[in-house]
Amino acid sequence: MRAMASKTPVGFIGLGNMGNPMAKNLVKHGYPVIAYDVFPEACKEFQDLGAQVTDSPADVAERADRIITMLPSSPNAIEVYTGANGILKKVKKGSLLIDSSTIDPAVSKELAKAVEKMGAVFMDAPVSGGVGAARAGNLTFMVGGVEQEFDAAKELLTCMGSNVVYCGEVGTGQAAKICNNMLLAISMIGTAEAMNLGIRLGLDPKLLAKILNMSSGRCWSSDTYNPVPGVMEGVPSANNYQGGFGTTLMAKDLGLAQISATNTKTPVPLGSQAHQIYRMMCAKGYALKDFSAVFQFLREEENL
Amino acid sequence: MRAMASKTPVGFIGLGNMGNPMAKNLVKHGYPVIAYDVFPEACKEFQDLGAQVTDSPADVAERADRIITMLPSSPNAIEVYTGANGILKKVKKGSLLIDSSTIDPAVSKELAKAVEKMGAVFMDAPVSGGVGAARAGNLTFMVGGVEQEFDAAKELLTCMGSNVVYCGEVGTGQAAKICNNMLLAISMIGTAEAMNLGIRLGLDPKLLAKILNMSSGRCWSSDTYNPVPGVMEGVPSANNYQGGFGTTLMAKDLGLAQISATNTKTPVPLGSQAHQIYRMMCAKGYALKDFSAVFQFLREEENL
Amino acid sequence: MRAMASKTPVGFIGLGNMGNPMAKNLVKHGYPVIAYDVFPEACKEFQDLGAQVTDSPADVAERADRIITMLPSSPNAIEVYTGANGILKKVKKGSLLIDSSTIDPAVSKELAKAVEKMGAVFMDAPVSGGVGAARAGNLTFMVGGVEQEFDAAKELLTCMGSNVVYCGEVGTGQAAKICNNMLLAISMIGTAEAMNLGIRLGLDPKLLAKILNMSSGRCWSSDTYNPVPGVMEGVPSANNYQGGFGTTLMAKDLGLAQISATNTKTPVPLGSQAHQIYRMMCAKGYALKDFSAVFQFLREEENL
Amino acid sequence: MRAMASKTPVGFIGLGNMGNPMAKNLVKHGYPVIAYDVFPEACKEFQDLGAQVTDSPADVAERADRIITMLPSSPNAIEVYTGANGILKKVKKGSLLIDSSTIDPAVSKELAKAVEKMGAVFMDAPVSGGVGAARAGNLTFMVGGVEQEFDAAKELLTCMGSNVVYCGEVGTGQAAKICNNMLLAISMIGTAEAMNLGIRLGLDPKLLAKILNMSSGRCWSSDTYNPVPGVMEGVPSANNYQGGFGTTLMAKDLGLAQISATNTKTPVPLGSQAHQIYRMMCAKGYALKDFSAVFQFLREEENL
Repeated sequence: MRAMASKTPVGFIGLGNMGNPMAKNLVKHGYPVIAYDVFPEACKEFQDLGAQVTDSPADVAERADRIITMLPSSPNAIEVYTGANGILKKVKKGSLLIDSSTIDPAVSKELAKAVEKMGAVFMDAPVSGGVGAARAGNLTFMVGGVEQEFDAAKELLTCMGSNVVYCGEVGTGQAAKICNNMLLAISMIGTAEAMNLGIRLGLDPKLLAKILNMSSGRCWSSDTYNPVPGVMEGVPSANNYQGGFGTTLMAKDLGLAQISATNTKTPVPLGSQAHQIYRMMCAKGYALKDFSAVFQFLREEENL
Repeated sequence: MRAMASKTPVGFIGLGNMGNPMAKNLVKHGYPVIAYDVFPEACKEFQDLGAQVTDSPADVAERADRIITMLPSSPNAIEVYTGANGILKKVKKGSLLIDSSTIDPAVSKELAKAVEKMGAVFMDAPVSGGVGAARAGNLTFMVGGVEQEFDAAKELLTCMGSNVVYCGEVGTGQAAKICNNMLLAISMIGTAEAMNLGIRLGLDPKLLAKILNMSSGRCWSSDTYNPVPGVMEGVPSANNYQGGFGTTLMAKDLGLAQISATNTKTPVPLGSQAHQIYRMMCAKGYALKDFSAVFQFLREEENL
Repeated sequence: MRAMASKTPVGFIGLGNMGNPMAKNLVKHGYPVIAYDVFPEACKEFQDLGAQVTDSPADVAERADRIITMLPSSPNAIEVYTGANGILKKVKKGSLLIDSSTIDPAVSKELAKAVEKMGAVFMDAPVSGGVGAARAGNLTFMVGGVEQEFDAAKELLTCMGSNVVYCGEVGTGQAAKICNNMLLAISMIGTAEAMNLGIRLGLDPKLLAKILNMSSGRCWSSDTYNPVPGVMEGVPSANNYQGGFGTTLMAKDLGLAQISATNTKTPVPLGSQAHQIYRMMCAKGYALKDFSAVFQFLREEENL
Repeated sequence: MRAMASKTPVGFIGLGNMGNPMAKNLVKHGYPVIAYDVFPEACKEFQDLGAQVTDSPADVAERADRIITMLPSSPNAIEVYTGANGILKKVKKGSLLIDSSTIDPAVSKELAKAVEKMGAVFMDAPVSGGVGAARAGNLTFMVGGVEQEFDAAKELLTCMGSNVVYCGEVGTGQAAKICNNMLLAISMIGTAEAMNLGIRLGLDPKLLAKILNMSSGRCWSSDTYNPVPGVMEGVPSANNYQGGFGTTLMAKDLGLAQISATNTKTPVPLGSQAHQIYRMMCAKGYALKDFSAVFQFLREEENL
């Protein structure tokens, strides 16, 4: 407990579905938290937990020299850092600013430049793992930024995650996450197509999954998160595609991959098509279902 | 050796790149082989090994009541079974005919019907694993047909493969192979896209592969057969994409998947796009390279 | 009327939605019709019109040396020509057999070979234009076969169509139709995407259509059959996508294009994707709507 | 000439391939031009023509209250308007600023807001037609902005174009251009696929083009700019795909369409795939060829 007493405050901006349990884990580890959220109600809970609640990102920056931000999209991140009452208005020299939002890596780089001009340090550290992992404190953080500052970031991030990976210069944390999720979407759709085709051709789904998993078609979507109801237990496909990683969130990440690919002139024919498929699913009522519901989207002919 | 002496002859039709080492493994296991190939030179080697060489598939059927066929495509299989000098002209009642070709499952079903009419048994048993696995005798066989005959088929197939999987009724062996290879093509292209995008965004390829492999993007193409030169050793990408599984062969299997999907009215948006990408690669000079060369196909901008 | 009296009988096989009005137009032009359909009820109407009704395609071939077939798919055509009671069982030497079905051009070629062996002539002559055009007698026929026989075919086809185009050797009639419909599907989906994107970006649909139609985006789908409700009158989009050319029919033609492209190893990346989109639409309840309903399929987000 | 003498100066920023002939047409129509380009050499020619050459966009804004900008991409436009020496530093109240660059409509809207804050007016007016049309003064302008200001804009734009279309609020000029070019790319690729498939199936290219053009596959790419060598004269396909509209330019416009679609969550499955195909073409050496060279890209198998 003495160790805790000596801990200096940590700012936390963005107390939504993910930020809330993340910030609580900081509190649990004894860090005095300086909290801010655009929705004042989101902060109340933290006041009860002994956190200081402030009126703006700038106020957080005035009181804490280590700040974590967890925001829904690029424009929010730009506002929180560079807006009229943004962090940069009052950031102290030498501060460490860690952005765990999933945003365009090009935006991360711009924010890093702006932060650097103020004499502070910026790192991007998006997470993998959903609300459950945030609660359990076993998120994975993919971290981009100056390598010498990685240990300082890791000290805080290990309170919230079990896996903290250094990826390279600023923006590479985002890049790693975006690339992983693009490949994930592609192999999930591929798994759904292959399982569906196999079933239509007379194969038993469990047997087909077993064959794929011992062959070269094996992937996380086939062996850990199979999208066909009845093949595995404890996955969203076993529970009408509830819980898990929502189709809108996947569509958002694929949109970021698309923008990064467009900006770097990188051909991503299947990544691009995966983006469109998740976009059509959103347009057809699957927005809130787990992204493995693509199996249902491709199927369903029976019901008509 | 006495056991071998008692073995009855096995017919083998199609002694190409794959059929040659497969038939040799039957010889090694003591089976008297009755051989046929459209190219007489392909048979010479077998004459020297003590096999009987015949003039037509019909002749094989006259002398052996267990026959394995290994042919390049659907039309060849149709010719060998139902042609003017085809197996069915002289097949004996009760014969076991095993087709290890990779062909349209609908054709397998038609052949099975024709065979059944003659009082014989047909099974489809396409293989996974290339020439190396054929030589080493550790192919995987995916077998479709009447379950009671599976043990009889397995007796022969285990001489050539380490893994013999029963998949269900006739045609499901083909179905399993086609579905696996479609998913394989999709995840290979996806891996190539994700790795390429990550590299463009500043990530080190080895580090990115490591991150994908411990995350939800993990797949056989990323962790066992990575398409990016320098990431893994002993794979085609480490050897200028030589050896391995050729792009034309992958294009052929994706064509079969496409035909099966069209016939069963199954949507396969990414499988269909993967087919087109391998088709374009064939049109652009990649026909003989390993299918992981899709990384090079998407890349290469540097060289211009 | 005397001229009519001298006309020799014409066989007609396949009296469905399209065949019915087509055969009636032959009757109107004074041709004695010898009719057959698998569903006897389909023939009744023709009995009343004075046509002879027969029991099989073979019977038709016995009584008429000019026969037109109009069948739903490749397997039906194969059965009608080469089946146990097929045309070829009793076809007379020198007969002219015209197949107006839309089928795989490779199948047309096979049928042509089989017909030729019997000393008769085969031509493929698929139609463009729906039931309305069939009734009005202004279909377009795309004809493949030996050029010397074209005039003989044209004599009959002009009774049912206003436009009879010679395309080349056997199979090219099918090829022309398939290529046209593939391009049609692609530009229809493209028009739907462009209109939808423009509307989302704030453009008035009528104005956007006008701009496209005077620019390089102009196509039949944008200027004659616009898929956006309210832009044009008298098209299916103005009538809740009823009537017109059904989504299942388009999916069928795209499947034929896919099979032809696979067989000839031709890359068709957008044609393939168009096929998948119409396949998904069929799986999602759009099977019976006009194919311009792809605008609604991509849209609809509003309703959720 | 007296009329000309009374004309007030017009600023022109961006004197590249397109801007150069456009500005010259303003000079020809008697407008005193105030010129600026980042490359001073680009201005020399205008000095000889009697134009004033300035040191920065801000300087242009100081001396002219009507300014036209013609820049290669969004970041350039942002810099020229809002940069350290940008137009907005010295823009006069009531000035009319017309941006003819092709950029993201979202950027146009942001620029419009910034301009409006300074009491000036912003319109987006991207062009259709290439360098030839720019020289001949018959470009098409698609104009977005406040309708009352359209006449003032049109006065200038008609000096450079034969067609000036009002599209709606700010950003809709860009939207119209992007949508048209997306549909153009889709139908060009579709035409190339359909022509290629037809040729493979035995059709004569000229005949196929004729059939498409009298049928529902008809589009600008098939009837005015056919991509198959030998079908039409006077188009890039008749001249080894030189001249015309370059593949990189098309890829850029498709990238803008992609970004707009992603931002508005609009599914554009074929538009997205068209983008990827032009991206792959750029990676494979087609960057500087006319965009109709997609026919060659899909083909070329012969040469291998």
